[in-house]
Amino acid sequence: VKDVHAMAPAHERLELHRVGVRGVKKPLVVQRPDRTVTLTASFAVAVDLPSTRKGSDLSRNAELLAEVVDWTAQRPVESLESACSTIARELLVRHPYANDAEVRAEADYFAPRGISLNRQSLEDFRLYAEAVARRESPAAISLARTIGAEAVGMTACPCAMETAREKLTREFPLLADPSLKDLPIVTHNQRNRTRLDLELPEGVDVEVDEILSAIEGAQSSPTYAILKRGDEADVVLTAHRHPKFVEDVMRDLLASLPARFPTLPDAVGVRVVTVSEESIHKYDVTSSHRTVLGDLRSPPA
Amino acid sequence: VKDVHAMAPAHERLELHRVGVRGVKKPLVVQRPDRTVTLTASFAVAVDLPSTRKGSDLSRNAELLAEVVDWTAQRPVESLESACSTIARELLVRHPYANDAEVRAEADYFAPRGISLNRQSLEDFRLYAEAVARRESPAAISLARTIGAEAVGMTACPCAMETAREKLTREFPLLADPSLKDLPIVTHNQRNRTRLDLELPEGVDVEVDEILSAIEGAQSSPTYAILKRGDEADVVLTAHRHPKFVEDVMRDLLASLPARFPTLPDAVGVRVVTVSEESIHKYDVTSSHRTVLGDLRSPPA
Amino acid sequence: VKDVHAMAPAHERLELHRVGVRGVKKPLVVQRPDRTVTLTASFAVAVDLPSTRKGSDLSRNAELLAEVVDWTAQRPVESLESACSTIARELLVRHPYANDAEVRAEADYFAPRGISLNRQSLEDFRLYAEAVARRESPAAISLARTIGAEAVGMTACPCAMETAREKLTREFPLLADPSLKDLPIVTHNQRNRTRLDLELPEGVDVEVDEILSAIEGAQSSPTYAILKRGDEADVVLTAHRHPKFVEDVMRDLLASLPARFPTLPDAVGVRVVTVSEESIHKYDVTSSHRTVLGDLRSPPA
Amino acid sequence: VKDVHAMAPAHERLELHRVGVRGVKKPLVVQRPDRTVTLTASFAVAVDLPSTRKGSDLSRNAELLAEVVDWTAQRPVESLESACSTIARELLVRHPYANDAEVRAEADYFAPRGISLNRQSLEDFRLYAEAVARRESPAAISLARTIGAEAVGMTACPCAMETAREKLTREFPLLADPSLKDLPIVTHNQRNRTRLDLELPEGVDVEVDEILSAIEGAQSSPTYAILKRGDEADVVLTAHRHPKFVEDVMRDLLASLPARFPTLPDAVGVRVVTVSEESIHKYDVTSSHRTVLGDLRSPPA
Repeated sequence: VKDVHAMAPAHERLELHRVGVRGVKKPLVVQRPDRTVTLTASFAVAVDLPSTRKGSDLSRNAELLAEVVDWTAQRPVESLESACSTIARELLVRHPYANDAEVRAEADYFAPRGISLNRQSLEDFRLYAEAVARRESPAAISLARTIGAEAVGMTACPCAMETAREKLTREFPLLADPSLKDLPIVTHNQRNRTRLDLELPEGVDVEVDEILSAIEGAQSSPTYAILKRGDEADVVLTAHRHPKFVEDVMRDLLASLPARFPTLPDAVGVRVVTVSEESIHKYDVTSSHRTVLGDLRSPPA
Repeated sequence: VKDVHAMAPAHERLELHRVGVRGVKKPLVVQRPDRTVTLTASFAVAVDLPSTRKGSDLSRNAELLAEVVDWTAQRPVESLESACSTIARELLVRHPYANDAEVRAEADYFAPRGISLNRQSLEDFRLYAEAVARRESPAAISLARTIGAEAVGMTACPCAMETAREKLTREFPLLADPSLKDLPIVTHNQRNRTRLDLELPEGVDVEVDEILSAIEGAQSSPTYAILKRGDEADVVLTAHRHPKFVEDVMRDLLASLPARFPTLPDAVGVRVVTVSEESIHKYDVTSSHRTVLGDLRSPPA
Repeated sequence: VKDVHAMAPAHERLELHRVGVRGVKKPLVVQRPDRTVTLTASFAVAVDLPSTRKGSDLSRNAELLAEVVDWTAQRPVESLESACSTIARELLVRHPYANDAEVRAEADYFAPRGISLNRQSLEDFRLYAEAVARRESPAAISLARTIGAEAVGMTACPCAMETAREKLTREFPLLADPSLKDLPIVTHNQRNRTRLDLELPEGVDVEVDEILSAIEGAQSSPTYAILKRGDEADVVLTAHRHPKFVEDVMRDLLASLPARFPTLPDAVGVRVVTVSEESIHKYDVTSSHRTVLGDLRSPPA
Repeated sequence: VKDVHAMAPAHERLELHRVGVRGVKKPLVVQRPDRTVTLTASFAVAVDLPSTRKGSDLSRNAELLAEVVDWTAQRPVESLESACSTIARELLVRHPYANDAEVRAEADYFAPRGISLNRQSLEDFRLYAEAVARRESPAAISLARTIGAEAVGMTACPCAMETAREKLTREFPLLADPSLKDLPIVTHNQRNRTRLDLELPEGVDVEVDEILSAIEGAQSSPTYAILKRGDEADVVLTAHRHPKFVEDVMRDLLASLPARFPTLPDAVGVRVVTVSEESIHKYDVTSSHRTVLGDLRSPPA
């Protein structure tokens, strides 16, 4: 059978950065320290293509994904990102003409949460993993990995709270009483989605639950599936006692990372996107930032 | 050329309810009383198929959509639903083997809004229209139309407000002072999406701006694109002075329809879906209802 | 604590059809005959609300979902629809003021597929389940269930194939040679998504793998994740030897159901939606139909 | 009124890359050489935030968008990207503390297409524009712009065509006759989405219709809304006479740019993403590449 992919392309000297497949959905069984978790993961994998070759052998991508992922019910993997790393390295073996291979995956992830011990349930988060393998020499492959997660929480606006306090104090003069100076005041609050990605060198690992805790700690309040009558007020009060712009969520999260990940090297890349789905607008407010852990440890003057 | 569509199908006596196309995007120019509006509309059109025919002549659908919609820059239509009605009737002419034809369309719609005269801007809403033409006899076609719209606004929860009041009064006893009994108290508030569809008999029309006003009047507060510092507090205070569950949004909207549409017949169908994208949960709260205007005028005991 | 939900609403005599939550994501462990499957399921649950009550006790929905779903890693359920049925019945217990309860769920589902034994992998499908519990009397609850699934396959157009044959025969007269009369001829082919839902009375069950087989048997060809070079041609040839309009997919599927589900009662409801994402158009072609199994057994003359 | 945004943040030395709003939908009227076009555009705008300031003045973004976009029915803009450029520059005026401003917009776009003169209709494409303004000095602002578009067309696979030819020749020996060597042979064909973005220096403009023509010229065939019976075969034959992998679409597009844009400077950035929604798989095949026009004119050896 003629190998059309291996033929010469119509144009000379046009290598391509990425050729691959995306939207490959698979069940992935992960062995966590305390339990086994089955993710419904969506994978995108790609390699580069040299200028001398018409096409990439895409069937190898599908075979490889099946080999690495389909049998994890029998042989669980350590994590979503370890599966991505395995696939990225092996892509360079199966595509000998390629110099680098990229794997991206994402999945819903469930973890127990609750406002109290008798209100626990499984809440949904989102996991992200990327692995890029590079052929540094015929014998050596380098591997860059990113692990990320998104958590939905709540923000309460500090600005509208201040202006509402001023307006309400004109209407209700008693509000100026010193005993009420810490009374939480009405403002707009809303769903906040924050995603943190950490770019890791080889040999360094991060626990996704730590990423989620970092995010939830930076929002005005986490949110919960089960809230009985009094609980709702507790979440509301927590959020209004920690009013935050997206800028505050971003900075509180960034500032918390050195203490939360004390053993990670300075070179670890940090990417954050935070989005508040504003209740007083039809549009979203968002902030994004990119830095390295070292700069968060001793920010440039 | 052989007409494969007109051939006999492989199975006998299997007529099909709907065969058509969907996701046909078009610019539609609408002449409103006060201005010309260009919608980016997405259409789905379909007819039934008798058991004697293998396929529906789908190219006629695309031709018809082009004829009715593509030239509205030169010849504007009256409304999205009038375009749907024209298309539905003409589908029965072009598919002589069909007994009924269904057209659905939706589009973003922009209308001026603002918390005050010097804060006006164009805000986005969503329009929906449906038309079903039925061949009642060789000479008579009946037409049923639905016109709907969705508006995003804000809801503030009345339940968490009450429990927060109780908790806060224990912490701040001065809150029990009678002068503070109308002080708006913190609660969770969030984006609310409410859609109202009206099923109209022939010859009866409804102005979409009236539908949007009805929805916005039933939410805790409308939302606005432009809010300077003090304005945010005004929206927040309005919402907290009208705390509503989705159930309240639904009932206030339903109860307002008889006064808002006094000339519409009792038989007009009413469908409402309202969704609050809860700030204290990762999931949405929703309510849906279906009734007729007559029952809202004198609800069954 | 004041029970705001139980208070009287602002309007009299306005009962509401549905009040509930949607977008509640959970991992659900299902014990299949041959293996354990973990679904990432999204649930929507709702009950009706009498006119005398301001709000529905939504926290009970979240508690119930946690009780029924969160522990299935320890105690697997039989199926997605059995979980829905359990939840629907129990909703009527927890909402004593409600008369009917509706549960909808959907999830990705993975099943082994392959063009040959050494090309097997896990392919993704979509599952749907609905359960509606109704309080027929204080002591009796009825339960209506629907189970459905969607499979992505391939269709090849029979019409363009015929006209291409005519055009090509003018250009290549040898094509008219009798030995070439069964030669598959070029046409447009594309992704087809077909969903079949079966509405079941109590006590009657259907295996979702049977639903998927029925759909795949009605498309021009199933599709596969792993296709080595020669395999691609085999899928292409299969599809071109079974060219089908969406109308043909629909009718072949409907006509196959009596033989595939011989023991199901005549009253079982059948709903099909099939969509071909046309390669020669930017829009989709679609057909939908609704009938009962009895009418497919002996269609009305 | 207290200006909370201007207060000092809780953390020192944490400037943020981007703070802004997204999902702001607006109607934008564009004056084209030959006609006026109304786009339903979605905008995202953001600026950086210095470490000394708690929050960004987001209401200025909404005001600016309203000023620039809302009145284009009276005063049309030249293009989507010129609106983005105006907004980006003005953002730096309204946020005097910011160093750079980023605007992104996208919209459906309709252009006449047809397989022949009497089959013309308006087909839908997608436009993208970005503008980044940078404060190079107190007096100087630089502006980088990107303009892009996506077109949906068709690809036919050259590999499956070859293997199908071999298999069919074994079954139909007459196929080996020299007179049939150019007979188009069955393969899988599918929707292809290709997006081309050009990063332009100041003072250089590109016509979006040229971008769309470049993309459509690189696919196996454009697709059309209106295709009467014989037309479908013509599109099918065109596609099968130009079978292409995504790699071929990518390279043919890249290779065509020097001739199509002869006056653009070498430094113009070129980004392409092409996706084939495979008919024989449930997943997509994709290729992405990034280069500059100069390298396409004389590719590196």
